[in-house]
Amino acid sequence: MPMNSMHDLLVHELRDLSGAEQQLVKALPSLTSAANSEVLAQALRDHSEETEQHIARLEECLTLLGGETSPVKCKGMEGLLREAEDMIAEDGNVLVRDAGLIGAAQRVEHYEIAAYGTAVQLATVLGEMSVAALLRRSLDEEKGANAKLTEIAERDVNAQALLSSAVA
Amino acid sequence: MPMNSMHDLLVHELRDLSGAEQQLVKALPSLTSAANSEVLAQALRDHSEETEQHIARLEECLTLLGGETSPVKCKGMEGLLREAEDMIAEDGNVLVRDAGLIGAAQRVEHYEIAAYGTAVQLATVLGEMSVAALLRRSLDEEKGANAKLTEIAERDVNAQALLSSAVA
Repeated sequence: MPMNSMHDLLVHELRDLSGAEQQLVKALPSLTSAANSEVLAQALRDHSEETEQHIARLEECLTLLGGETSPVKCKGMEGLLREAEDMIAEDGNVLVRDAGLIGAAQRVEHYEIAAYGTAVQLATVLGEMSVAALLRRSLDEEKGANAKLTEIAERDVNAQALLSSAVA
Repeated sequence: MPMNSMHDLLVHELRDLSGAEQQLVKALPSLTSAANSEVLAQALRDHSEETEQHIARLEECLTLLGGETSPVKCKGMEGLLREAEDMIAEDGNVLVRDAGLIGAAQRVEHYEIAAYGTAVQLATVLGEMSVAALLRRSLDEEKGANAKLTEIAERDVNAQALLSSAVA
């Protein structure tokens, strides 16, 4: 589909994001199972529920915009999830791996922060204020999820991993 | 290489980032050539120079940490650059494509913000303050490059693209 207008680009961005969120929701259970820290596992479970809401919101946005609503496969998220799978498969200290899993999950969150940020800008310039408002809610939740992961790294996982690997 | 310690994880993260920056520096000329807006093209050229410095800093950090310094292929960046290549190849309005190129470039910047953010945290918890300081400089430059792209979208590209596609 050629991109002749900013409307076309916004639809393209939202279908890409929809594909990205659907890939993520499938991958989150493996990431959650791999987490040793219960605090981290709970944060990932919470984000899985948020991700389901983000998918529903994207469908709503695409319906509001008219035209094609089906997701497209997101190559960016595909690469990020491959990197996360490699971290899940890492041998070694499981507490250190938790710190690595947080790093992989924050790459995913930042992908979504960038993508929703672009989409909010496009919806705003197009005057699609209902769409912009829905997307901004998801953007804020992605930022919240990212900040939560930073907090878990700083307050729980990193110090425990350091202690555990210094003792080992 | 098993990750037995936070030091192992930091080395892993920096080798991954080094691979990511090397993939990016090879991809930036195509992105720059595809840009219709001279302001956008110049920002991408400026960031290419910064990226060369980031690669040198990562080598310095890995040398300070001792052990293996060679980059590893970054699957996350590989996916993001595939997405950017698809945007470069898009047909349609070249001003609209500029807005899409900014979106792709901001996904890359956010990847690096996440990865440098994780690496700064790890270096700090390990007490590797020289490494943390070098990484923080690159992190700040990535944030600056991302903010510049937001500014270019808001001040130049989005409004021009909207006008051009409304007229067409």
